[in-house]
Amino acid sequence: MRQYDLKKFYPLILIFVFWFLKPPEELDINGYRVFIVFVSVIFSILLQSIPTAVSVLTGLTFSVLTGLMPLKSALKGYSDSTTWLVVIAFLIAGAIINSGLGNRISLLSIYYLGRSITGLGYAICCAELILGPVVPSNTARGGGILAPIVDSISKTLGSSPSNNPRKAGQYLNLVGAHANLITAAMFLTGMAANPLVSRAALEVFEIEFGWLKWALGAIVPGLIGLAGLPLLMKYLSPPSIESIEPVRIRINKELQTLGSWTRAEIITGIIMVLMVFLWLSKSFHGFGTTIVALSGLMLILFFKVVSWDNMVKNHKAWDTLIWLGGLLTIATSLKEAGFIFWFSGILENSLLDFSPILITLSLALIYFYSMYLFSMLTAHIVALSGAMFLIVHNLGFEPIIIICLIAYFSNLSGCLTNYSTGPMIIYFGNGYVMPSAWFKIGFIVSIYHIVVWLGIGSIWWKFLGWW
Amino acid sequence: MRQYDLKKFYPLILIFVFWFLKPPEELDINGYRVFIVFVSVIFSILLQSIPTAVSVLTGLTFSVLTGLMPLKSALKGYSDSTTWLVVIAFLIAGAIINSGLGNRISLLSIYYLGRSITGLGYAICCAELILGPVVPSNTARGGGILAPIVDSISKTLGSSPSNNPRKAGQYLNLVGAHANLITAAMFLTGMAANPLVSRAALEVFEIEFGWLKWALGAIVPGLIGLAGLPLLMKYLSPPSIESIEPVRIRINKELQTLGSWTRAEIITGIIMVLMVFLWLSKSFHGFGTTIVALSGLMLILFFKVVSWDNMVKNHKAWDTLIWLGGLLTIATSLKEAGFIFWFSGILENSLLDFSPILITLSLALIYFYSMYLFSMLTAHIVALSGAMFLIVHNLGFEPIIIICLIAYFSNLSGCLTNYSTGPMIIYFGNGYVMPSAWFKIGFIVSIYHIVVWLGIGSIWWKFLGWW
Repeated sequence: MRQYDLKKFYPLILIFVFWFLKPPEELDINGYRVFIVFVSVIFSILLQSIPTAVSVLTGLTFSVLTGLMPLKSALKGYSDSTTWLVVIAFLIAGAIINSGLGNRISLLSIYYLGRSITGLGYAICCAELILGPVVPSNTARGGGILAPIVDSISKTLGSSPSNNPRKAGQYLNLVGAHANLITAAMFLTGMAANPLVSRAALEVFEIEFGWLKWALGAIVPGLIGLAGLPLLMKYLSPPSIESIEPVRIRINKELQTLGSWTRAEIITGIIMVLMVFLWLSKSFHGFGTTIVALSGLMLILFFKVVSWDNMVKNHKAWDTLIWLGGLLTIATSLKEAGFIFWFSGILENSLLDFSPILITLSLALIYFYSMYLFSMLTAHIVALSGAMFLIVHNLGFEPIIIICLIAYFSNLSGCLTNYSTGPMIIYFGNGYVMPSAWFKIGFIVSIYHIVVWLGIGSIWWKFLGWW
Repeated sequence: MRQYDLKKFYPLILIFVFWFLKPPEELDINGYRVFIVFVSVIFSILLQSIPTAVSVLTGLTFSVLTGLMPLKSALKGYSDSTTWLVVIAFLIAGAIINSGLGNRISLLSIYYLGRSITGLGYAICCAELILGPVVPSNTARGGGILAPIVDSISKTLGSSPSNNPRKAGQYLNLVGAHANLITAAMFLTGMAANPLVSRAALEVFEIEFGWLKWALGAIVPGLIGLAGLPLLMKYLSPPSIESIEPVRIRINKELQTLGSWTRAEIITGIIMVLMVFLWLSKSFHGFGTTIVALSGLMLILFFKVVSWDNMVKNHKAWDTLIWLGGLLTIATSLKEAGFIFWFSGILENSLLDFSPILITLSLALIYFYSMYLFSMLTAHIVALSGAMFLIVHNLGFEPIIIICLIAYFSNLSGCLTNYSTGPMIIYFGNGYVMPSAWFKIGFIVSIYHIVVWLGIGSIWWKFLGWW
């Protein structure tokens, strides 16, 4: 008899306990039950005893079988343009890795900027910044492109997990990991799930926080944050190495081996530039982020940078489609079943006595540090970002502040742990940093982020006239 | 410079030629243009110079970029319950192969029925019949489960493609291939795309041609067709073998090696029986085919017959999701943009002079033999089944006849070629049958099918009181 993991039944128990209880007055029974399903699914995702997709599909199936929603509604999230933007993001990111363009850009950054150990740190930040807007999965960018390079240049410098990790490897891996989160925060297309925040902002505040606005709000704190990161890390985890000559020799050699730009690299590069251009110029042509991304994907397929047969094997994309589409359905149903209306009514009354600024800031910090509980940036966003927006919705305080904070913190909060998102897992998995150091430094970086993005950021947003 | 396949531009040329032409009077410009996109996509699928999914996605992207439909509408097919039924069908079929249940059922059929070469033919038919309703992808059933077994028992009988193919192998492979199409025709869940026919019937005639009705209409012609098949093949491709003792010895040994039923086989078997029971009893509980299939899938995942990590690697399912969902969107838009209304108006006037029965029969035969042009049963269904329904819609003749004929012919017509559907490709690929023999026998089988399903079938449907 195989051992069953009993944890997977906890969410079911949760459902059974609350399902038959009487809902609070003025809350419709359907709204109440959708909320129970939503909480159980999120709870199940946090427990991680079954795959996320299975948690979500169980929630959907349960909802249909109990008559909570018809099948038609349960599948609605699978035609949501945000869901597809995320899926397309994974597919495009795969193509950039495949074409070799990501690798070449990283090597060139190191070639031009990496003249000292701090220079290497800046080179990593620079590569992240160039790839940030066009590799719309931070895991593909950090984990797939940069982490292997960072690992191998560390070893070239005579620093490996078992041999002198603090000589260079710990420093470089920490810079790589945290730079990835900053560039993820800077662009709507810097992390696959960022569009979910825009979507929530549009739903709750009817404010369009699109590609251009997202990048505009992030450009100053983002660049300052990136510029300070290699220095901060030098202080927090000083590398003992003196000459990085071996890396320079190796990078020269690797670039020579690569030879001239390939057809796939050039075409991919042009498509990427075109996409960024179209994202920036939305106000002129009106095409949204998703259709631009889809067009870019079609160009990639049409020019055979990647074949469809290859692309369809990107399991991560389909896995995300299944769980994200389903979770969006459930989250949207919360609104449709009247739960959101009821909930914001309650909040409005209970928050009357507090200062709106205080509430906004408290929520942003709660949002940031609640990431300790989550093992996936995306789940954190789906579970909490909408709720945060909702709470401040009726406060009368400038909504743009909470939108910016939630949008950027959604990514930056990944700094806290070694399990928060793909690149953290992979950089940590490289093995140069002890868990205790990772957590300690992560916490200090979180304060750094809050100072930069809340402090300098809010001044920048004021300067932009956003509040 | 790489060689480009120019064929892939033909559909684009088609679009450019017709796009700017003035549509026929009384046909809305949008309806006209959606039709052009639809025809171009189908044309591109027929040409097969780019993957089906890429053809469809290009059509969708084009439609959004030209303002023909908003992105929201373009993605609608991805939340269609028919699309998901097909996807779930592939996932369930994968699980049945994975669990070993399909293999065991096939071996048991051979063990009990295979006492002569004709007996082996019946054993294959029997295995197909048992697996038909529960392995909802005919490719998984025929190509994944049975074709390898048929190939290996042929070889055990001393018949291989290079050595005595006509001794036993040609006979057994032909029986296997054509039996697969008959069981595909017999059950709504016998072939992944069958639900599309039901969907079209519901849309055009508002007649629910569900699981039970589909099976009821097919049971008599289907069983007669299956019963006659091994005999017909014995006449068309007589095997020269006399004793099949080697196979009996081998099957005994294989069953012994398998040992007692595994946990995965038992659980999968129970879930399959449960699913068929729920499909049959829809009138009692009201749960549709898709939600029953989804529940079955969740049970498979919950009992870990197959892990989600494994299931998500079923590329065929995701490929189908992408192209089928997109194609459904375009096909549905034909209706929404007014094309269908206009088209049926034209038809109504021009067909007034002909007898409705004659038209129905002619259309059914045209539908059957147009399969020569298609390399995929599903594309044939999407391209033509709705149109066939539409043409007879206003004739006043019993619609159930055309529904039955199109539903069953959608699968049976695969007999014509060696490229019509997965199992044909795989059985033909086993190498026992020369192309000329395959085509000649395929044509004779098509007449056999038409006699059985149109002749006996229509009497049976009359007996059922359907017309």
